[in-house]
Amino acid sequence: MKPKNFADRLMDAIDAKRNPSIIGLDSEFSKLPGFIKEDARNKSGSSAEAVFNALLKFNTAIIDSIKDIVPAVKLQSAFYEECGPAGMRAFLETARYAKNMGLIVVGDMKRSDIGNTSAAYSNAYLGRVHLFGSMEPAYDLDCITVNPYLGSDSIHPFLDDCRNFGKGIFVLVKTSNPSSSEIQDLLSGNKKIYEIVAGMVDRLGSGLAGERGYSAVGAVVGATYPKEAEALRKLMPEAVFLVPGYGAQGGSAADIVPCFNRDGYGALVHSSRAVIFACQESGKEERFESAAREAALQMKKEISAALREKRLYPW
Amino acid sequence: MKPKNFADRLMDAIDAKRNPSIIGLDSEFSKLPGFIKEDARNKSGSSAEAVFNALLKFNTAIIDSIKDIVPAVKLQSAFYEECGPAGMRAFLETARYAKNMGLIVVGDMKRSDIGNTSAAYSNAYLGRVHLFGSMEPAYDLDCITVNPYLGSDSIHPFLDDCRNFGKGIFVLVKTSNPSSSEIQDLLSGNKKIYEIVAGMVDRLGSGLAGERGYSAVGAVVGATYPKEAEALRKLMPEAVFLVPGYGAQGGSAADIVPCFNRDGYGALVHSSRAVIFACQESGKEERFESAAREAALQMKKEISAALREKRLYPW
Repeated sequence: MKPKNFADRLMDAIDAKRNPSIIGLDSEFSKLPGFIKEDARNKSGSSAEAVFNALLKFNTAIIDSIKDIVPAVKLQSAFYEECGPAGMRAFLETARYAKNMGLIVVGDMKRSDIGNTSAAYSNAYLGRVHLFGSMEPAYDLDCITVNPYLGSDSIHPFLDDCRNFGKGIFVLVKTSNPSSSEIQDLLSGNKKIYEIVAGMVDRLGSGLAGERGYSAVGAVVGATYPKEAEALRKLMPEAVFLVPGYGAQGGSAADIVPCFNRDGYGALVHSSRAVIFACQESGKEERFESAAREAALQMKKEISAALREKRLYPW
Repeated sequence: MKPKNFADRLMDAIDAKRNPSIIGLDSEFSKLPGFIKEDARNKSGSSAEAVFNALLKFNTAIIDSIKDIVPAVKLQSAFYEECGPAGMRAFLETARYAKNMGLIVVGDMKRSDIGNTSAAYSNAYLGRVHLFGSMEPAYDLDCITVNPYLGSDSIHPFLDDCRNFGKGIFVLVKTSNPSSSEIQDLLSGNKKIYEIVAGMVDRLGSGLAGERGYSAVGAVVGATYPKEAEALRKLMPEAVFLVPGYGAQGGSAADIVPCFNRDGYGALVHSSRAVIFACQESGKEERFESAAREAALQMKKEISAALREKRLYPW
């Protein structure tokens, strides 16, 4: 049986929550609530086990507090990798928990390599790997982010797994950080590099469109560059935009509106620190779950209002 | 005490072996010798444990067979990541073993993200991470590869760890794959994108030069593009070039000569499959260690001859 297209799955999840936002589990160990770390250390036999337990405890609590509000979560791999193999165990178990709670799980890996090596990355996060005579999933995420610097042959292996397993990718096009301009904004002919990458994304995604008109190949477009987003929306009509930079990085609700199509779909707005570490503003870390829930609801409200104002709210 | 500059450590290691080559532990699980996998499966309690044991057994045997020949090994992260957290345990233990055997260990991670997230990647592979009140290393490699698409603020966090811990990075400049031209060869003004990235590498590395005249900030320059390498050598005089594409990908010994400076240093030539899976050509997998050793010696001989022919052999 043909698996359901990733973009269709994502649109259904967005409809179910009436909320095109995604919460980042950028669970930096040093920022986790002290009582969770203390408790994990007291109950665990080793430091590695304590790291695993603390990360998983925090993540599952955050997921429980927002799972009825948002359609998706994004795991920033760097914050798990920095905790060593135990961190990757927490990454895996968090992804499983989120999927079991009905959430779409995006891995923010920004991977890319030459062809056969990109295939291994795709096996790892989207597909299957050949172990002891059988094909088994490793992390089995729904979608990951991919870096385009090596060109299309570094992206093709991911497309196979998108097709075979109903998975998706978001290709970095215009990132939210200040120095993204150094390479991405360079002019080549009459186009900027990020516009050329946008053309690549549109082409790569054309064979992977779902029934809702969106492709399993999406694009990362930072909320901090609304003018660029407007132009990019036209260059990649079928792409879902993953939009980082909302909140902590300075992007406002008005800034993210150009990332949406006229149908009110086509963007997934990301916030992390401002939600999962919302408790740190009040200094009451024991209330981290309710603080995260309030922040996620507030974000939904702001995005809804901004879409309604431009008559783009689809529900 | 100030740690020794990475480039100086690398030059010393190259001198000690009289060999500017690096062997890639691209240990794809499906290609490991059948008897190693069988043995690991029989002795291990779980599939994850068997994967870990098989990867580590293969890697330590390869390291033992080449450790007196080469100065460095490179671990391609994708082939460990595709085996899940157990794969990353094998990655960690392999890196430790190689360091204990006196080899320089490069992690081919091609990581990159916005500032504070890049810092987490740097913590993971080069620096220290804050766990339970103390700063601890996670993987503690000597050097990793880094992708430049996000610009210099994505690279800065790695420079801090290079400085503080005597570590290095290789920034992707011109990669060895066929579609590397799609972005990297685009012309902006009178420069190609990879030349602009080369300028960035040269600038970022200028504060991290060692006593031997090379910087801890190096560049990835594919052996499959010798003409480009010649131009890039002039743009980045202080950078060590990590040169993939030798052997299996079609680069010859003559092709890698332009990656060296007039002093006979400045490049580290990489080969993986043609060495670690050399046994597969003969069909005798039980001889994988001696086949790898012979291939590594043959590679050393070819590179030495090519350098001698151009009067670049420094020993």
